[in-house]
Amino acid sequence: MEEVFKQEPQIEEPFYFKAYLAEKVNSVNQALDKVVSFKEPQKIHEAMRYSLLAGGKRVFPVLCMAACELVGGEESVAMPAACAVEMIHAMSLIHDDLPCMDNDDLRRGKPTNHKVFGEAIAVLAGDALLALAFEQIANATHGVSPTRIVRVIGELAKAIGSEGVIAGQVADIQSSGLANVSLEHLEFIHVHKTAALLEGTAVIGAILGGGSDEQAEKLRKIARCIGLLFQVVDDILDVTKSSAELGKTAGKDAIANKATYPKLMSIEKSREFAENLNQEAKHQLVGFDPEKAAPLISLTNYLASRQN
Amino acid sequence: MEEVFKQEPQIEEPFYFKAYLAEKVNSVNQALDKVVSFKEPQKIHEAMRYSLLAGGKRVFPVLCMAACELVGGEESVAMPAACAVEMIHAMSLIHDDLPCMDNDDLRRGKPTNHKVFGEAIAVLAGDALLALAFEQIANATHGVSPTRIVRVIGELAKAIGSEGVIAGQVADIQSSGLANVSLEHLEFIHVHKTAALLEGTAVIGAILGGGSDEQAEKLRKIARCIGLLFQVVDDILDVTKSSAELGKTAGKDAIANKATYPKLMSIEKSREFAENLNQEAKHQLVGFDPEKAAPLISLTNYLASRQN
Repeated sequence: MEEVFKQEPQIEEPFYFKAYLAEKVNSVNQALDKVVSFKEPQKIHEAMRYSLLAGGKRVFPVLCMAACELVGGEESVAMPAACAVEMIHAMSLIHDDLPCMDNDDLRRGKPTNHKVFGEAIAVLAGDALLALAFEQIANATHGVSPTRIVRVIGELAKAIGSEGVIAGQVADIQSSGLANVSLEHLEFIHVHKTAALLEGTAVIGAILGGGSDEQAEKLRKIARCIGLLFQVVDDILDVTKSSAELGKTAGKDAIANKATYPKLMSIEKSREFAENLNQEAKHQLVGFDPEKAAPLISLTNYLASRQN
Repeated sequence: MEEVFKQEPQIEEPFYFKAYLAEKVNSVNQALDKVVSFKEPQKIHEAMRYSLLAGGKRVFPVLCMAACELVGGEESVAMPAACAVEMIHAMSLIHDDLPCMDNDDLRRGKPTNHKVFGEAIAVLAGDALLALAFEQIANATHGVSPTRIVRVIGELAKAIGSEGVIAGQVADIQSSGLANVSLEHLEFIHVHKTAALLEGTAVIGAILGGGSDEQAEKLRKIARCIGLLFQVVDDILDVTKSSAELGKTAGKDAIANKATYPKLMSIEKSREFAENLNQEAKHQLVGFDPEKAAPLISLTNYLASRQN
C-alpha cells in the first residue's frame, strides 16, 4: 500500500491534501481540547475554549507541523508548539476584536469573545492563552533538546512582540482612517501583523524537527509569502464576498476606509500579486524532498484559492 | 573591610539593606531601560517604557535576584528573568487599570497607561511586555543550562496563567460588589492574584541560581507569605492613608465595596495576620546561609512596614 502511494504522488495530491489537512486539524483540535479543559475558574477556561475551539482554518498549527515534517521531524515533537501558535492566534483575535481595537461583533460566524463573556474576561482570556502558549512549549515538548526548545521560545516571543505582530497592529491602528496610505506602509503592516507569526510558526517547526539554520530561513521566506498571500486574498474576499459567505462582517474595510491591496492596486493587480507570492513560496521548496514538500505546496495553493 | 562587615551583620543590617535595595533597583532599572529602548514603532515602545520605567518598588526583580543569590547564584544569571517578572508585573497593572477592568486613572502618582496612550495601545503594550518577558529569558539568559531555562519558562508561564494570576483576577472580578465574600474566597484571590507571580519569581530565581528542588520549594513558601503580607498591608494602607501619601487613589476599596482583610477581620487582626506572615517567611529561611538570607529577611520586614 505504501509503495502505491509513493508511485502516484501527482495523481493522489489533491485528495491527499484534503485528507492530510483533515487529519492534522483533527489532531490539533483534540490536543487543544485536552490542554484547555473545563477547569476552575470555569469562566476563564470557558472563554479561552470559546475562541480556541471555534473552528478556524488552523493554518498556524498545520504550518508548524508541516515545517517540522519537511525537515524530517515527527508530528508529535511539534504538537505542543502547534497548539501554542493557535493559542497565540486566538489571543490576538480576541484582543483585536475588542471595542477599543477593531470593535468587531462577529468572528467565524459567532459573536466575538467580549460579546459573550464581557470585555474584562476577554482581555484576561487573551492574556491567559498567551501565557499558556509558552507553558505548553516549555512543559509539554518532548524528544527535542532543551537548547532547541529555548531557541523556539525566543523565536516565537520575538515574532509576536513589539517588533513583530504588535508592530503591525500599531501601524494598522495608526493608519486607520488616513486618506493616503502608501503600498509600502501597507506591506509593513501585513509583514508584521500577519506574516510575522506565520514566519515564527514555520521557523519553530523547522527547529523542532531538527532542521538546519538554512532550512529554517527558507521556511521563514515561505511563511512570509504565505502571510502576504493570506492577506491579499483576505482583502479581495472582503470586497467580493458577503458576510454569510465569509462568516464575518464583509465590506468592513471599505466602511472603515481601510487601506487594502484592492484599493491601492486594483483587484486585478491584487490577484496577480497573490499568484506571484504563491509561486515564490513554492520556489523556496525546490531542493527539499518533494514528498515532504507536498503538504506545504498544497497549503499554499489552498490559501491562494480559498473562498472564505 | 570585608571582615569588619562579617563581624557586625546585626548592626549593619538596616543600612546594608537600603544600600542593597538601591543597588539592585538601579541595576534592574538600567537593564530595563536598555531592553525597552526607543525603537520603531515609537508609540508602542513609549507606552511600554511609560509603565515599565515609572518607578515602583521593584519587589519582583529584587526577589528574583535575592532568591538566586540565596542558593549561591550570581546576580547576572537572574537579571533577564528579573527584568521579565517586572515586565509581567507592569503588563498586569496596565491591563488591570483598563476601563473594562478596575478603571483606574492614577498609578504610581501618574495617569494610567490608557489615559496617556489610549486603550488600544495600552492593551497592546501589555501584550508586548508579556511576549518580551519570555523573549528576554530565552534569548538573554547566559551561564545557565538550557534545561533550567526551559523549567524557568514553564514555571513562570504557569504562575501567570489561568490557574495562577489570572485565576485570581477572575475571582476578584466575580466577587466585586458582592455583599458576602468569605475570608476563604479572599485568600483564593490573593494567593493567585498577588502571591502566584511572587512564588514564580522566587522559584525561578532559585532555579537560575542552581538551587535544589527543595530550596526552590522553600522559596515558593516564602514568596506566598510575602505575597499575602503585601496584600494585607495594601488593604490596611488603603483605609489608613491618603491618595497623596499612596501615589494612587486611596479608599477605593471601600467605595467599590471590595472585600479586604480589614473589612473581613478588622484592622487590628489584619496587622496580626501580617506579622504572622512575616514570621513564617523568615522561619522558612532558617537553614540557609545567614549572610545570604539577610536580604530576604530585610525585604520581608520592609514590605511589612512600608507606608505606601
